[in-house]
Amino acid sequence: MGILIVGSLALDSVATPFHSVEEALGGSATYISISASYFSGPVNIVGVVGEDFPQRYIEMLESHNIDVSGLQVVQGGKTFRWSGKYHYDMNTRDTLLTELNVFEQFDPVIPDNLRKSRFVCLGNIDPVLQLKVLDQLEGDPFVVCDTMNYWIEGKQDELKKVLKRVNVLIINDSEARLLAHEPNLIKAAKMIRDMGPQTIIIKKGEHGALLFSEDVIFSAPAYPLEMINDPTGAGDSFAGGFIGYLFKTEDTSTGNIKKAVIYGSTMASFCVEDFSTKGLENLSYLRVQDRYREFLTMTRFDELD
Amino acid sequence: MGILIVGSLALDSVATPFHSVEEALGGSATYISISASYFSGPVNIVGVVGEDFPQRYIEMLESHNIDVSGLQVVQGGKTFRWSGKYHYDMNTRDTLLTELNVFEQFDPVIPDNLRKSRFVCLGNIDPVLQLKVLDQLEGDPFVVCDTMNYWIEGKQDELKKVLKRVNVLIINDSEARLLAHEPNLIKAAKMIRDMGPQTIIIKKGEHGALLFSEDVIFSAPAYPLEMINDPTGAGDSFAGGFIGYLFKTEDTSTGNIKKAVIYGSTMASFCVEDFSTKGLENLSYLRVQDRYREFLTMTRFDELD
Repeated sequence: MGILIVGSLALDSVATPFHSVEEALGGSATYISISASYFSGPVNIVGVVGEDFPQRYIEMLESHNIDVSGLQVVQGGKTFRWSGKYHYDMNTRDTLLTELNVFEQFDPVIPDNLRKSRFVCLGNIDPVLQLKVLDQLEGDPFVVCDTMNYWIEGKQDELKKVLKRVNVLIINDSEARLLAHEPNLIKAAKMIRDMGPQTIIIKKGEHGALLFSEDVIFSAPAYPLEMINDPTGAGDSFAGGFIGYLFKTEDTSTGNIKKAVIYGSTMASFCVEDFSTKGLENLSYLRVQDRYREFLTMTRFDELD
Repeated sequence: MGILIVGSLALDSVATPFHSVEEALGGSATYISISASYFSGPVNIVGVVGEDFPQRYIEMLESHNIDVSGLQVVQGGKTFRWSGKYHYDMNTRDTLLTELNVFEQFDPVIPDNLRKSRFVCLGNIDPVLQLKVLDQLEGDPFVVCDTMNYWIEGKQDELKKVLKRVNVLIINDSEARLLAHEPNLIKAAKMIRDMGPQTIIIKKGEHGALLFSEDVIFSAPAYPLEMINDPTGAGDSFAGGFIGYLFKTEDTSTGNIKKAVIYGSTMASFCVEDFSTKGLENLSYLRVQDRYREFLTMTRFDELD
C-alpha cells in the first residue's frame, strides 16, 4: 500500500516581480504527491476538482505513478482557484483571490483499499476535513499534517483535536508563533509538542527548517538559490519529500527523520526553481540524491581536534 | 604577538520587554576582545574612552588577558554612549540615543609593537578610521572587518576602499542586501565578494549565519535558546570567537574557517544569554567546546545509504 495524501487541487494564478502565470496547476495535494512520487510508489491522492480541471494535469499526475482514483470530480463544478502576488523580496505575498468552489462542499471519502495506509499526509485543508479523514483510517498510521494561519485563527478547537492525533506537524515560523502565542520559536515548538504531535517541523523559508522531537533539535538550511522563480508550493513539496522518504525507508527513527527533513528541503528547492509544479515534474531520484549530497557539503564541519 | 582589535568601547543603556540596564559595558571592541580571549592570548585593544570610563571595566578586560595599552583615555572627555530598546520579538530594536563623545575625534594609533599583528579585527566603526588602521599595519595580516547600514549609506566610497583590503567581511543580512542592492542573499554575497573580501559571513540573527568563500557556501544554525536576554553584542561576540579560533589555530583554510564560524556562533549564543558583556565574562574554553559539540549534534545527518 502506498502513501495516502489528502489535500487540495487548485488552479493558481501567480504573479512575481519577474513573471506571471494564469490557472496553472496548484494545490497542496498536487505538490505533495508529485514530490513524494520520486521516492517510492504508489502515491494516492484524495481530493476534489471541478469539471473544468484540465485532463492534461490528471495525465501528468498519473505519469508520476500517482493514483487518482480517490479524486472526486464534481460534474458542473468549478475547481478551487487561488491567486497571489509576491513582493520584490519573494518572501512575502498577498493573496488576491481565494475561490473555494467545489472545495466548499468537499467531503473526503477514503477508498476502502486506502484506509489502512501506513503513511498519511494531511495537506493544508480545514481541520474539520482533516478530522474526517483521521476518522476513516484504520490501524496505526504515521500521520504528517500541515496547516496555516487561517485555520489557527478560525478553527483552533478543531485544529487542536487534529494535533492530538498526528505524529508530525509541519508549520511555518509565523504560524508556530501564532499557534503557541509565543515569539520565541524554541519555546513555541515545545508548547506545540505538548498539544500532541511528537515531532514538529518549523519551516523558515529561505532560512531552512527546524526539527523538534523528543530531546532533539535539528537545523536544516535552505538550499542556496540565486533565483527563486515561484515560492508557491515549497512547503507542500517539503512535506512530500519528507513523507516520501519515510515511506520509502519505512523507518521513523529520529536519525531517519533528520534525513527526511533534508529530502524535504531538497524537494522544496526544486519546486521554487520554476513556476507552478514545473520544477518538480522532470526530476529523477539521482538528481534528488545529488542535491541531498550538496546539503551535506553545506552543513558539514569538523569535530573538535 | 596577539590579535589586534580596533573598535568602540561604550556605555550602553538597553531596554528589553523584560529588563533594562543603564550605562553597562558595551562597544564592538569590548565584545570582540572578551569573546576572543577564550581562545588564545594576548588580545590587544585599540580604542578610546573618556575619563568617566569605570576602572572596574578596565580591570575586567585585563582579567581576561586583554592588553589595553593601546586604549586612549581622553582626559575630561566622555565615553561613547548608546541606548536602544528591543521589541517584543527581540529581533528588532530602536536606537534611542547615540552620543559619540570622545569617539568623534578618535584617531586610532596602532602601537609600534602591534603593527605587525597577523590577525586583525576591525570592529564596526567609521570606514575612514578602518582605513587609517589598515595604513598602519605591516606585513600581510589576515583582516576581519565588520560594518553596518549607517556606513553603507553614509560612507560607501570609503567602505569600498576598506573592502578591497580585508580578507573577511562580517555583515548582517539586511546590510548585505543594502550594500549589494540585491534582495537575494546568495547573489548579494557574490556581488560583495567581487568588491574585495575573499570570504563573507552573513549573520542572520536567530537564523544563524552563512559563509561564502571561493566555491563554498556553508550554513551554520544559531544555537536554539529559549530565553534571549539581550541581543546587543551578538555580532561582535561572533567576530571575536571567529578570529579567536583562527588565531589560536593559525589556520585560515576553508575547513578551519567553517569551524571558526561555529565558534563565532557559539560565542554569540553565550553573549545573548545575559545583559551587556555578562554572558561572556565567566566562561571557560571547556564550556565553549561543549557548546561547539552541541552545534555538531544539531546539524549532523547521515550520508546517503
